[in-house]
Amino acid sequence: MPPASAGGPSHVPTAGPATSFHEMWADLKPIGRDAGSGGYRRYAWTAADQDCRAWFKAQAESRGLTYELDRNGNQWAWQGDPLAGDAVVTGSHLDSVPDGGAFDGPLGVVSSFAALDELRRRGVEFSKPLAVTNFGDEEGARFGLACVGSRLAAGQLTVAKAHELRDGDGVSLPRAMEAAGYDPSAMGPDPERLARIGAFVELHVEQGRALDVSGDAVGIASAIWPHGRWRFDFHGEANHAGTTRLEDRRDPMLTYAETVVAARREARLAGALATFAKVSVEPNGVNAIPSLVRGWLDSRAADQATLDQVIAGIEQAARESATRSGIDLRITQESFTPVVEFEHALRDELAKLLHGDRGDVPVLGTGAGHDAGILSASVPTAMLFVRNPTGISHSPAEYAAEDDCVAGVIALADVLEGLACT
Amino acid sequence: MPPASAGGPSHVPTAGPATSFHEMWADLKPIGRDAGSGGYRRYAWTAADQDCRAWFKAQAESRGLTYELDRNGNQWAWQGDPLAGDAVVTGSHLDSVPDGGAFDGPLGVVSSFAALDELRRRGVEFSKPLAVTNFGDEEGARFGLACVGSRLAAGQLTVAKAHELRDGDGVSLPRAMEAAGYDPSAMGPDPERLARIGAFVELHVEQGRALDVSGDAVGIASAIWPHGRWRFDFHGEANHAGTTRLEDRRDPMLTYAETVVAARREARLAGALATFAKVSVEPNGVNAIPSLVRGWLDSRAADQATLDQVIAGIEQAARESATRSGIDLRITQESFTPVVEFEHALRDELAKLLHGDRGDVPVLGTGAGHDAGILSASVPTAMLFVRNPTGISHSPAEYAAEDDCVAGVIALADVLEGLACT
Repeated sequence: MPPASAGGPSHVPTAGPATSFHEMWADLKPIGRDAGSGGYRRYAWTAADQDCRAWFKAQAESRGLTYELDRNGNQWAWQGDPLAGDAVVTGSHLDSVPDGGAFDGPLGVVSSFAALDELRRRGVEFSKPLAVTNFGDEEGARFGLACVGSRLAAGQLTVAKAHELRDGDGVSLPRAMEAAGYDPSAMGPDPERLARIGAFVELHVEQGRALDVSGDAVGIASAIWPHGRWRFDFHGEANHAGTTRLEDRRDPMLTYAETVVAARREARLAGALATFAKVSVEPNGVNAIPSLVRGWLDSRAADQATLDQVIAGIEQAARESATRSGIDLRITQESFTPVVEFEHALRDELAKLLHGDRGDVPVLGTGAGHDAGILSASVPTAMLFVRNPTGISHSPAEYAAEDDCVAGVIALADVLEGLACT
Repeated sequence: MPPASAGGPSHVPTAGPATSFHEMWADLKPIGRDAGSGGYRRYAWTAADQDCRAWFKAQAESRGLTYELDRNGNQWAWQGDPLAGDAVVTGSHLDSVPDGGAFDGPLGVVSSFAALDELRRRGVEFSKPLAVTNFGDEEGARFGLACVGSRLAAGQLTVAKAHELRDGDGVSLPRAMEAAGYDPSAMGPDPERLARIGAFVELHVEQGRALDVSGDAVGIASAIWPHGRWRFDFHGEANHAGTTRLEDRRDPMLTYAETVVAARREARLAGALATFAKVSVEPNGVNAIPSLVRGWLDSRAADQATLDQVIAGIEQAARESATRSGIDLRITQESFTPVVEFEHALRDELAKLLHGDRGDVPVLGTGAGHDAGILSASVPTAMLFVRNPTGISHSPAEYAAEDDCVAGVIALADVLEGLACT
């Protein structure tokens, strides 16, 4: 992968979206990028996030769109009357995981503005209001819960629970919003706003290799796997690593390690996914047996029954290991999202709109959560995926070819034209 | 354990050392103590360390001792002429591991001052100079290398290597010393100073339960097991935990976990100790397969051949696991201390001096490293241990009974009288 690609497509496409497509990527490229890793660190309500939000607002204003920041910190850019109803909305998010790639999130937002530019170039007549959105805190990198902005709006996260969210330094979500100059007291369910949406379409870089295998630049989402996060707190006994006999130890690192190994085994046997990717150790000294090891489990499967079976298997293995080693184990489900089947009518309409020179557009499932998944409980929702040739995401090496990004913009423009124009 | 005990003996002993013993513990108790854990965080060249050093200097001055800070940041308090030679030196350290206990280190320094007080009360005649010491950065909690002050003095750590030491924030040892108002340019081997020492005796809380089992308040050290620290860098590939197929993953957390399990197995089979207690993960996000997991191994055994066998077994298991998962594994030995047999002549002299009402004093080995172990290569060195009824150390729960601490002071006074008085 050439270094330039980490910031998005690097030259002006010769067909399709105009210069602004290139400029949007160039403006976003340096924001929140770590010089060492080359990855993005755009966490909710940090300076990098504020820079992304300023970029969004500037994009809205440069196109003469009506800019709004909603009660939950989500950004909106409206063409037409926001209050007219039956609006067609498109967008994604601008925040990132730690050392994330350039495309996960921003590709959807940039493509939304670019698709609007494309429709204006086509000179189409809009029959419905159209909005571009940036949902806040989609990745949950700072406060540990994904899709906070859309969950709050859809009433899937209560204000009380949102107030309990804390970052690694103990800063609460409301304090973080306040520190970023935003009033957190307005936070809460926003059903009137959601009721004005007729259809929401989110374009996203694929986070697997299905389109690469099928040889397609663009695909349509069928469903999002059920998925959740569980925190495993392994409480042991601090002691000197150089003097405490093995038989006297209550070492939570050993139980954690056995649980990590068990999680992989259970996922493999069930054809599911289970990952321990985050850990925190107290006191985390080389010669001090830990008093506490906290490990976070992320698990997903194609259906609920399989996911239940995987979690039960991991929990049983962890409890058996804990009993062997004298560890006090507490397991907390930090978040859970049931399976999301995207609305079949809208999905079929997208397939029809995109059928043509392209032939049939593939329809695929995904293990990744999205704001579209949250919103699908409240409004008709669909997703488009753009090919990811390596399948790598949540990494500085995440990549999409420029031609495929342009194909995504054209596909999104075709969909928006079909949905919002007479 | 009563809460008061975490700060050391809490009332004035009725026999033996006078009020100052109690006052010394009371003065030290709040320094660097974390209100949440109740443990100590006295890391080298931090504010807490500076407070400990100010305490030491004040103790020296209040007794009319000559205070010195040596080239490597170790503190000395002299009775008699520091330059006369054949000095009897006693002391330990005041720094701590993360969330360490009250006794590991401070018990030796407090007992040294208290033993000097006891000898003055006895009205003995000193025939040799006597010094109390506080060796800097014994635990290595901040820069990852233990016994930095004594290693530098004894020439077992080069100035060049010391300059390469960095803390978790990337601050180098010289910069940390400078920030604490100390000139790091003087750092280096100090053979003239060591040549003036005739005998060094370190008193320390036991970090196991041998004395509790034998029913003795005080014991004498025979040897320190060979021990070392190894850093395992498991390099994998960052990717999305919710979308990457298990067979496409290069997940270093899995290899780390398998290595932790293997380390316990190898240590158990060999009758040795092996511990992974510290880990660092990049990027450490819940849904991001790590690009890098770093784990630190601490291992010790009664003899070199056994330790070699344990390390070889762990390394082989780690490499096999790494190969299975496509992980690039690099292993770095960060420190190593060969077996230390304390000088037999001095050890026998201590046994003779302490024999009497107590009967035979037990002689025991230990897995923990100490400044005494470093200095033993340069000067005749011995250690006294004070009973630890739970064996717990490197923990806020570390504990020694007040009667045993007083017995330690009296034993140390007896030893110093025998070595330094006519």
